Amino acid sequence: MSSTWGRNYKITIFGESHGVAIGGVIDGVPCGIPIDFSEIEKEMKRRSPGKNSFNTPRSETDTPKVLSGVFEGKTTGSPIAFIIENKDQRSLDYEKVKELARPGHADFTYFIKYKGFNDYRGGGFSSGRLTATLVFSGAIAKQVLESYGIKIGSHIKSIKDICDYDFDCTNISEVVLSELKNSKLPLLNKNIESEMINLIEGAKSQKDSLGGVVECAVIGLKAGVGDPFFDSMESVISGLAFSVPSVKGIEFGLGFDITKLYGSQANDSFYIKNADECGGKENLKNQVVTLTNNNGGINGGISNGMPIVFRVAIKPTPSIGKKQKTINLREIKNEEIELKGRHDPVIVPRIVPVIESVAAIAVLDSVLNGEKLYE
Amino acid sequence: MSSTWGRNYKITIFGESHGVAIGGVIDGVPCGIPIDFSEIEKEMKRRSPGKNSFNTPRSETDTPKVLSGVFEGKTTGSPIAFIIENKDQRSLDYEKVKELARPGHADFTYFIKYKGFNDYRGGGFSSGRLTATLVFSGAIAKQVLESYGIKIGSHIKSIKDICDYDFDCTNISEVVLSELKNSKLPLLNKNIESEMINLIEGAKSQKDSLGGVVECAVIGLKAGVGDPFFDSMESVISGLAFSVPSVKGIEFGLGFDITKLYGSQANDSFYIKNADECGGKENLKNQVVTLTNNNGGINGGISNGMPIVFRVAIKPTPSIGKKQKTINLREIKNEEIELKGRHDPVIVPRIVPVIESVAAIAVLDSVLNGEKLYE
Amino acid sequence: MSSTWGRNYKITIFGESHGVAIGGVIDGVPCGIPIDFSEIEKEMKRRSPGKNSFNTPRSETDTPKVLSGVFEGKTTGSPIAFIIENKDQRSLDYEKVKELARPGHADFTYFIKYKGFNDYRGGGFSSGRLTATLVFSGAIAKQVLESYGIKIGSHIKSIKDICDYDFDCTNISEVVLSELKNSKLPLLNKNIESEMINLIEGAKSQKDSLGGVVECAVIGLKAGVGDPFFDSMESVISGLAFSVPSVKGIEFGLGFDITKLYGSQANDSFYIKNADECGGKENLKNQVVTLTNNNGGINGGISNGMPIVFRVAIKPTPSIGKKQKTINLREIKNEEIELKGRHDPVIVPRIVPVIESVAAIAVLDSVLNGEKLYE
Amino acid sequence: MSSTWGRNYKITIFGESHGVAIGGVIDGVPCGIPIDFSEIEKEMKRRSPGKNSFNTPRSETDTPKVLSGVFEGKTTGSPIAFIIENKDQRSLDYEKVKELARPGHADFTYFIKYKGFNDYRGGGFSSGRLTATLVFSGAIAKQVLESYGIKIGSHIKSIKDICDYDFDCTNISEVVLSELKNSKLPLLNKNIESEMINLIEGAKSQKDSLGGVVECAVIGLKAGVGDPFFDSMESVISGLAFSVPSVKGIEFGLGFDITKLYGSQANDSFYIKNADECGGKENLKNQVVTLTNNNGGINGGISNGMPIVFRVAIKPTPSIGKKQKTINLREIKNEEIELKGRHDPVIVPRIVPVIESVAAIAVLDSVLNGEKLYE
Repeated sequence: MSSTWGRNYKITIFGESHGVAIGGVIDGVPCGIPIDFSEIEKEMKRRSPGKNSFNTPRSETDTPKVLSGVFEGKTTGSPIAFIIENKDQRSLDYEKVKELARPGHADFTYFIKYKGFNDYRGGGFSSGRLTATLVFSGAIAKQVLESYGIKIGSHIKSIKDICDYDFDCTNISEVVLSELKNSKLPLLNKNIESEMINLIEGAKSQKDSLGGVVECAVIGLKAGVGDPFFDSMESVISGLAFSVPSVKGIEFGLGFDITKLYGSQANDSFYIKNADECGGKENLKNQVVTLTNNNGGINGGISNGMPIVFRVAIKPTPSIGKKQKTINLREIKNEEIELKGRHDPVIVPRIVPVIESVAAIAVLDSVLNGEKLYE
Repeated sequence: MSSTWGRNYKITIFGESHGVAIGGVIDGVPCGIPIDFSEIEKEMKRRSPGKNSFNTPRSETDTPKVLSGVFEGKTTGSPIAFIIENKDQRSLDYEKVKELARPGHADFTYFIKYKGFNDYRGGGFSSGRLTATLVFSGAIAKQVLESYGIKIGSHIKSIKDICDYDFDCTNISEVVLSELKNSKLPLLNKNIESEMINLIEGAKSQKDSLGGVVECAVIGLKAGVGDPFFDSMESVISGLAFSVPSVKGIEFGLGFDITKLYGSQANDSFYIKNADECGGKENLKNQVVTLTNNNGGINGGISNGMPIVFRVAIKPTPSIGKKQKTINLREIKNEEIELKGRHDPVIVPRIVPVIESVAAIAVLDSVLNGEKLYE
Repeated sequence: MSSTWGRNYKITIFGESHGVAIGGVIDGVPCGIPIDFSEIEKEMKRRSPGKNSFNTPRSETDTPKVLSGVFEGKTTGSPIAFIIENKDQRSLDYEKVKELARPGHADFTYFIKYKGFNDYRGGGFSSGRLTATLVFSGAIAKQVLESYGIKIGSHIKSIKDICDYDFDCTNISEVVLSELKNSKLPLLNKNIESEMINLIEGAKSQKDSLGGVVECAVIGLKAGVGDPFFDSMESVISGLAFSVPSVKGIEFGLGFDITKLYGSQANDSFYIKNADECGGKENLKNQVVTLTNNNGGINGGISNGMPIVFRVAIKPTPSIGKKQKTINLREIKNEEIELKGRHDPVIVPRIVPVIESVAAIAVLDSVLNGEKLYE
Repeated sequence: MSSTWGRNYKITIFGESHGVAIGGVIDGVPCGIPIDFSEIEKEMKRRSPGKNSFNTPRSETDTPKVLSGVFEGKTTGSPIAFIIENKDQRSLDYEKVKELARPGHADFTYFIKYKGFNDYRGGGFSSGRLTATLVFSGAIAKQVLESYGIKIGSHIKSIKDICDYDFDCTNISEVVLSELKNSKLPLLNKNIESEMINLIEGAKSQKDSLGGVVECAVIGLKAGVGDPFFDSMESVISGLAFSVPSVKGIEFGLGFDITKLYGSQANDSFYIKNADECGGKENLKNQVVTLTNNNGGINGGISNGMPIVFRVAIKPTPSIGKKQKTINLREIKNEEIELKGRHDPVIVPRIVPVIESVAAIAVLDSVLNGEKLYE
């Protein structure tokens, strides 16, 4: 069950890092949506490795091939299947992994769960490479959402202890989100860029790695999307976010910091922008704002019309060159491991489009939920 | 869809704060498990209001009535249905809510989503009262888990800025969890108790409210439980946790703080306790530990045999007596609101058993997943 | 999982024949629908026992009590929970069943599956009494469907070898369906009624039982409802129909008889009623008919605008007074059984509203599927 | 949602008749099962066209390419993805279909549902060609089932009004099933073969087509598999069977004919083969038989240890060369259609392995359900 997600915009993913191909199937895409393939490739490139000094030089081109569901440039309503072939496999690099469980990775837990039958090369199905399937699915979702006027963007909130500004949650413009999308290091405060790069290259030179926080915003979403309880917007987004390898935390609005406020500070007061002109439920949907946005655009699991804002904690890349203690799974003994291969000193910049994809897939799934829910 | 959760241990909940009854149906409970009803009532009481000075005096007895699925004291394998009648309803208290959207509540978003047809009394289906159904479902889950040797407990990590100790994630004893369960304010550091109570009573006297953080641990869970990707242990737990009203963040292991470490610090090294005696996969499941537990007992979505530890951020109770700005939903104008009723100045202590229930339900659902997954 | 059904109009059922109550939870009911409770009771009565000479005299009143989801007479959009208390339980009658597996019943398979822990009294969860929960859920569904102009009705196609006429599948009027609903024995050919009653009373006097076929029609459903492949209209209806105890076959349109035609006879030709006036897809939906209706209103899993017609085979009531060979489950030996209790010589007339409910629930679930699917 | 099926053995399918490729993803395959690819190809060939005079000469090789989930010849537990490329596409043949709705096909209903955006070439996603994905998924399922001692086979029960014998439902041998699998026309009564072939070639020469009935048996399945109500064995099998294009009816055991018996004839009496030696529930599972098998091996939705037997009605191939009345979807007028292309005069022989696959997939999904359900 674990490889299919969604109620309405439903994705199924497959593949192993060093198998023939990875890919997926997307079901529930509304019909008649024109698909801009160059835009999809642009998103794929944001995630793909080998772009600069702090990326693994593995030169996967990550070009997806669409097998179904698009006809004469538009979605047909039938499932969209896509594959991304694995070209630059160097399985020999990973032969050692057959025996040694890399700390911070899923080698040990997969070995136990799958009784040693799992494809261990490069982590197999547990590889971060599988996130390319989310980016493809998210790129399609973004195009559908844009037809409804909904945009998604994000920035690196922090790498280790170097922090960017926060989004101004009551007012996030499309322009800002576009600029972030076109940045090498998407930051609101450009002044910290060189410091951040230095930090990353320092870690790299020490064969070590770094983590960070990504902050993501969804703007243009009307009030009334999401469901009570088990399918709350937070539930849907977080459930999908934690399927991304390396994610260890998520928070909405002020998140953990909201626990430090009084209720009178934390509550977001409602305000009708043009109460005089606003004559019914449909109008309220467009004219109500909250004066603050500590709840991240969600009340009772349902969007309130303000930007949805959330932050995701990404742990330091577990693949490091430094010597580590570990166990030998096949010979059953304690050992040490020194990973050779090619590793990102920090995965955060490449994970930015993955987190946006999580938001796009989850929001579209909620938008499409139910009968005439969204207009 | 939003009121049913689970793949194997499947719960469906219903009810409104001021309706006839709330309740639920649990499907997938293994047959033949003896049910200790006094233990269930004990759990219900941990959540129920009216216990002390900082709880709402609403004297719901919260006594669940089981309608099916238990025969001669044991589970039958058929669905367990239960109801909790609403006895102390004072609908008049809430008549004003029909018009005014309480800030921080779901009044506005429900009004938009359900076109004004929702039962607005006491928040209707969005009421925190519905968490009693999770506690019942969690109490059953705990009894099943205990038959497998798995225990769950938690403490208040913080209220506003008063912080308790953290769990020692590599070593959490059953004794500590039991003591916490029997505490009025479950804290590891008892010395902060009076300070915390003063803080709460201060907020109450100002008609204001507080939030906090709950830290929860699952011990005794073997390696190999959970699924890759979309049904990772983190995905399953977080999706359910965010269905609890007032939860705004969740993190596993070190969570957001892991982003401040180097990979060499963050990775948890594996170690076989008795490598000499340990001859195969089944033995590895019991004898492998990690020297640190920064990943909260989960690698690649799957349990690694260490305690699962997570923290949940609870926002300040949105119901406060202080005057707040808001909107009138029916007359469509800006207004002010002053809530009379009975409100908890802090919901955190009552939410502790709810978070444990989230853990119990989610872990049991994962344990029961698949074919002979757990032995 | 087996007690929850549906993607959009989702029902969860529970209860045992001789437990405290049976009932269910319905999620996904559109908000703002006025509910006519007297209409629901009328449907419940069509199924309830004790109405005439060929029904079991067990005088269950089958009055459902609604616990949630309806407010001021209208649906709220939150789950509708209902219970039907078990009043006339005579558990002593069934004590013998604890040991002897009734042939044709689920006593043996439940005993194996649930390791002897199942509530054996009256069949427990496997009892036909549970179909009352489908009738309630179907009665709500019918009211929603009627607001879209969709009606459902059915008749007894046969009891043993006494056969009624078939529906004229190209032309079924609302008037005919209404008359059937108000008949004691719903037949198109009233001339066979007394013969049928004689047959039933004959079986009863011999402590034996009869089966038959129910034919059901859905009219007023526009083209375009249903989904390809796994969620075809036939898949959705049949999956639900086979959850009704005693159903052993289902066929759509001509069903098994279509296999005896040539393709040129079986294919239903399309025809636009007013091709001159009909200018687009939306109009086609209303103006296309088929000249025959051998496919029962469904092509490729999707409704084509013609009546949906299907027939369901109901096996003879397995509970009979005649002596039968069987096994003793607890003492593990071969034995004979002679059922005393109160048994219907034929369940077909009482199952008619159950089959209509299956149709109503399945069609509504499909109508509500997807985004703005139905207008 | 309509392209994903299953709870435990979960398949997702995609593709269009004239697109790049069709294929699927199978999730939930137990790990460590050796896969015999030559066996899979044999199954694919049973369905593939062009084998003899009464098949379409379209020479699809139908060779599946596995992309993931199998490593060193064994299943890994990760999703198995496969594609089957479309090589012999002659889209020009079908250009006319863009306008004319073929009677008996899904052209009209897809046009309405997908607003004209669907890939109309060869029926697109609605094409019978998609059943190749079921055969692949079924071939894998069969190999898993065989490791549990469960076998599946079937024969042509009838083509038009030429009828084969029925299975002897109380006693179906593995030998018989193997022989059927290796037959060109799988029949129990070989004497009707030439008559059947004459009938088929007669229909072909008249540019017409035929339908028939397939009877399928599952042997070696222990008692206790399947679930009550919504996931009854009959529900699960029938829901999947009706996703196969052209299926219009299904019946279990005696099916519609059971309605013509008295209860005393229809009930299957239980009998313990070796009551003396049989000491408990586990033994009962293996030693109980029924003296007749009118219920097709299922009581209350759960297997009783006898062969599961069901029959499926296949309508005559809708693609025929004869002139037919129909409508022009794009110009919106009444017209006539004469299909040129290549068409099977009867699809029944090719659909035999598809129905077996339905049985294999559905039974495996049920076998894998729940915790340690099957031993």
